[in-house]
Amino acid sequence: MTYRAPTGEYQFIFDKLINLMQLSKTEKYADLDQDTIGAILSEAGRLSEDVLAPTRRNGDLTPAVLENGRVRSSPGFAEAFQALAEGGWISTSADPEFGGMGLPFTVTMAVNEMTAATNLALQLNPLLTQGHIEALEVHGTEQIKELYLPKLNSGAWNGTMNLTEPQAGSDVGALSTRATRNEDGTYAITGQKIFITWGDCDFTENTVHLVLARLPDGGKGTKGISLFLVPRILPDENGELGVANNLKVVSLEHKMGIHGSPTAVMQYDGATGWLVGQEHDGMKCMFTMMNNARLCVGGQGVGIAEGAYQHALAYATERKQGRTPVGEGPIIGHADVRRMLATMKAETFAARAIALESALAIDMGHATGQDDWKARAAFLTPIAKAFGTDTGIKVADLGIQVHGGMGFIEETGAAQFARDVRITSIYEGTNGIQSMDLVARKLMDGGDAAYALIDEIESFAETARGTRPNMAEQVWQATESLREATEWMVTQSELNERFAGAVPYLAGFARVLGAHYHLKAACSEAEEGPRTRLARFYIKRLLPEHTGHLAHATQGAKDLYALSDDDFAA
Amino acid sequence: MTYRAPTGEYQFIFDKLINLMQLSKTEKYADLDQDTIGAILSEAGRLSEDVLAPTRRNGDLTPAVLENGRVRSSPGFAEAFQALAEGGWISTSADPEFGGMGLPFTVTMAVNEMTAATNLALQLNPLLTQGHIEALEVHGTEQIKELYLPKLNSGAWNGTMNLTEPQAGSDVGALSTRATRNEDGTYAITGQKIFITWGDCDFTENTVHLVLARLPDGGKGTKGISLFLVPRILPDENGELGVANNLKVVSLEHKMGIHGSPTAVMQYDGATGWLVGQEHDGMKCMFTMMNNARLCVGGQGVGIAEGAYQHALAYATERKQGRTPVGEGPIIGHADVRRMLATMKAETFAARAIALESALAIDMGHATGQDDWKARAAFLTPIAKAFGTDTGIKVADLGIQVHGGMGFIEETGAAQFARDVRITSIYEGTNGIQSMDLVARKLMDGGDAAYALIDEIESFAETARGTRPNMAEQVWQATESLREATEWMVTQSELNERFAGAVPYLAGFARVLGAHYHLKAACSEAEEGPRTRLARFYIKRLLPEHTGHLAHATQGAKDLYALSDDDFAA
Repeated sequence: MTYRAPTGEYQFIFDKLINLMQLSKTEKYADLDQDTIGAILSEAGRLSEDVLAPTRRNGDLTPAVLENGRVRSSPGFAEAFQALAEGGWISTSADPEFGGMGLPFTVTMAVNEMTAATNLALQLNPLLTQGHIEALEVHGTEQIKELYLPKLNSGAWNGTMNLTEPQAGSDVGALSTRATRNEDGTYAITGQKIFITWGDCDFTENTVHLVLARLPDGGKGTKGISLFLVPRILPDENGELGVANNLKVVSLEHKMGIHGSPTAVMQYDGATGWLVGQEHDGMKCMFTMMNNARLCVGGQGVGIAEGAYQHALAYATERKQGRTPVGEGPIIGHADVRRMLATMKAETFAARAIALESALAIDMGHATGQDDWKARAAFLTPIAKAFGTDTGIKVADLGIQVHGGMGFIEETGAAQFARDVRITSIYEGTNGIQSMDLVARKLMDGGDAAYALIDEIESFAETARGTRPNMAEQVWQATESLREATEWMVTQSELNERFAGAVPYLAGFARVLGAHYHLKAACSEAEEGPRTRLARFYIKRLLPEHTGHLAHATQGAKDLYALSDDDFAA
Repeated sequence: MTYRAPTGEYQFIFDKLINLMQLSKTEKYADLDQDTIGAILSEAGRLSEDVLAPTRRNGDLTPAVLENGRVRSSPGFAEAFQALAEGGWISTSADPEFGGMGLPFTVTMAVNEMTAATNLALQLNPLLTQGHIEALEVHGTEQIKELYLPKLNSGAWNGTMNLTEPQAGSDVGALSTRATRNEDGTYAITGQKIFITWGDCDFTENTVHLVLARLPDGGKGTKGISLFLVPRILPDENGELGVANNLKVVSLEHKMGIHGSPTAVMQYDGATGWLVGQEHDGMKCMFTMMNNARLCVGGQGVGIAEGAYQHALAYATERKQGRTPVGEGPIIGHADVRRMLATMKAETFAARAIALESALAIDMGHATGQDDWKARAAFLTPIAKAFGTDTGIKVADLGIQVHGGMGFIEETGAAQFARDVRITSIYEGTNGIQSMDLVARKLMDGGDAAYALIDEIESFAETARGTRPNMAEQVWQATESLREATEWMVTQSELNERFAGAVPYLAGFARVLGAHYHLKAACSEAEEGPRTRLARFYIKRLLPEHTGHLAHATQGAKDLYALSDDDFAA
């Protein structure tokens, strides 16, 4: 796999689409400067190209395995992780007080996209650690922060999230892992957790688990859950490692993809843990890390889309087959191959713009404390997660198709992108859950955040009428349809009426939002250039899909439930 | 995997949608009777449920391997194949003179759908043999027919197709395997072929290859190619096996799916072959078998869709997670899970109806010799292939999503459906090639075959207005859009203008055609029943997608080629 880090794309989106440097007008990021960002992107790009990309296939061919109760990671992963850690790439947005770089999350999103593109299985390790760090920064005691954050930030230790249990997946509140209070102020954790990404790691000194569990007086459902920090090896006050904790990896899963990422079943047998946040308030703490984590998963989708696109493009510009309309050249000259590649590129651009815009809204929300930024971030996050991952899946699938028969042969690596990325629409909240979040919680404001975005898109389309009249008109019209669908959603008092169309509504919203960024990109060119040409492709050929999505979105639940269980079984 | 053969669905489509029994009014099928068909479907269904389904995972977990130059097949495959052969399921449509059942191809399509659903990797073996049989029936000499057909029909020997070479995939005419004339009237074949499905087999006595090669005086391109029959072991005149031929399996591919199907690189070193058809006329002979084979591949897509649907439905009616709007029951009560399952079921029905309608058109074409049936078959075949396989891929993907995290764990088997079916949109002519065939060769009649179908759909929608007014109106409107898009296609004199929108045009046509069969199914119910409810789901929620497809279809090539190579590489 050869991979060229799309640093120019990040710079373009930062500068021309989302205006990243508005952060420098806030107190928090007053020191932010363009040069630093440029240097960060190139350094992370180089690491991804030179160090991570060559290890991608290793994880697939030589999966992580469990040996004598410990994970043995795939060849080359330890060295690649070391390089990631030494470059500071685990903690780009972490608090400098504890060893982080303190950069905006938006920059981290770009960095993470590159690391995901080049080795998704490995990247999950630092990604989980990042979420861990964030949860501790917000909810950890000073003692915990001082002890754990430097270790996590440096990559000496890694962090995990332990939510899921066999009977508690999307319904986290059903979990049965229990915690009891020890006399010394610590807690004893007992129970089994499944789907624990990098539940053990042989290239860090310690693995620290954040575990959701219920205290004896914790009520039923999500409200009775507390969050605990449970290290594999118990450290003393100075971080010196002592004895092993009472926890173990029971087994690893055999998965469709990301074979290099060990997915563990974890067993806790009275393991010692420390409370993070308040008792019975664990879900809130967990959401702190899940919110950014799900945006990062959207970024994983974008990264794989970029990787799969570059991989397919390389094949299509080399492979010859039949005479094309533009001569004896490679298959990129065939209209249908061109259609596929243009779709891949246009979709990846749209998903990336949405993901980075969401990240910026999070940064602006933190830096300014303003509710409108926070509402914007909250609204965009499920769209960025679901559309980013759906795009990764779609683009990787097209990448296989571009390869023809060779796409089905594992040796070419096209299939690995598709197998790896498939999990992203499931973990960190399935895309169905994201869509339900969008139409329920994120429309609880009566649609204010949604309409603010819709107004913004329409207003830009109006100004674009002067220079890109046809495209602008199509975007404007589509946005009106989106407004109508949003009005329909907001007026449904029964949430299940919304849920019945949640996934297509999110898809329709993303379609229109993607068109907005393409139009904006087109308008950034004084003369018609590559961005205008790509925007035209997207707006004329992909944007019309919004019609189908929005028609589906607004049908309500009745017909769905008219289908009886017998109907399904027939 | 538990699988229930959808024999009732075939019967319904035969009786109410396509009128299979019109075949009995032709001389060829005058003896066809309902009872035989019913018995055939139940027997094949039972075999698929009891014998094939339990072997599906074996192929995935213990792939076919090459040992000392021979293939060792997956556990249980030999026994399952034996049962297939003994039941006569290889030769349901073959000529009774040589041991076939002589049933309509439409019935074979239904049988093959069930065998594909339950073990796609194994089913490829008899499927290739069926194509082989067909080619020999039409183009073989009497001597060849008498020697080979009884062996192939009984499953004593299996047959393969050898088209592809490293530099000759979609562009078959670029092949370099050569043939020279021996003095005894046989030929010597030399060259390498790749992607040869079941290129060797350890549960048949002999494997017979149909190989495309070029004679010294064969011209360039497809016109200079001849077809040869090349057995692994040379038989004497009575079919007694003698010495090994000069051919070997070089290696097997590591694939994304269908691990139980050995995909071979074949080496021919002056192997002895017999001419099939005329010299330099091999492509025509090959197309005889490829035409039905590609329809059967469409049927594989439908089969996997059915298997994945049943598999996901079983999970969704058992797995509990969160409180649903209809109580504490399983996740099928959640609107979004219901949406996914309804989509899976509605798409599978549409794809199956199209596939069986195409097969019937082939049967009617053969039985009546009428050009309009032949044109209908020719037009429907690429749609059935591409839509059937796209549906298989989409439904299997939804099946993973219904399973949530468990869908990514190989143990559940959901991922295998998706990995196995992924090849079907590539082999037997990629879906891009199918779409180009549709908009070029299949519109060469000025659109007659297309408009005949469009008229038929509209006319049915008009009669349906009395009983299903809303649905009928939506179908009618969509068909008008399809007519306009077809008119646009037909009037493009530059084929590449059509090619630029070929895939979305085919998708749009299939969308509307699927709605037609749903509407017809709905109208077959005196009162609103399950078919009407499913039709409503499809027509209100999925049919609107045609708008996006047809908008994309009619954009022409200009904008695609405006994107320069530099644009793609940027």
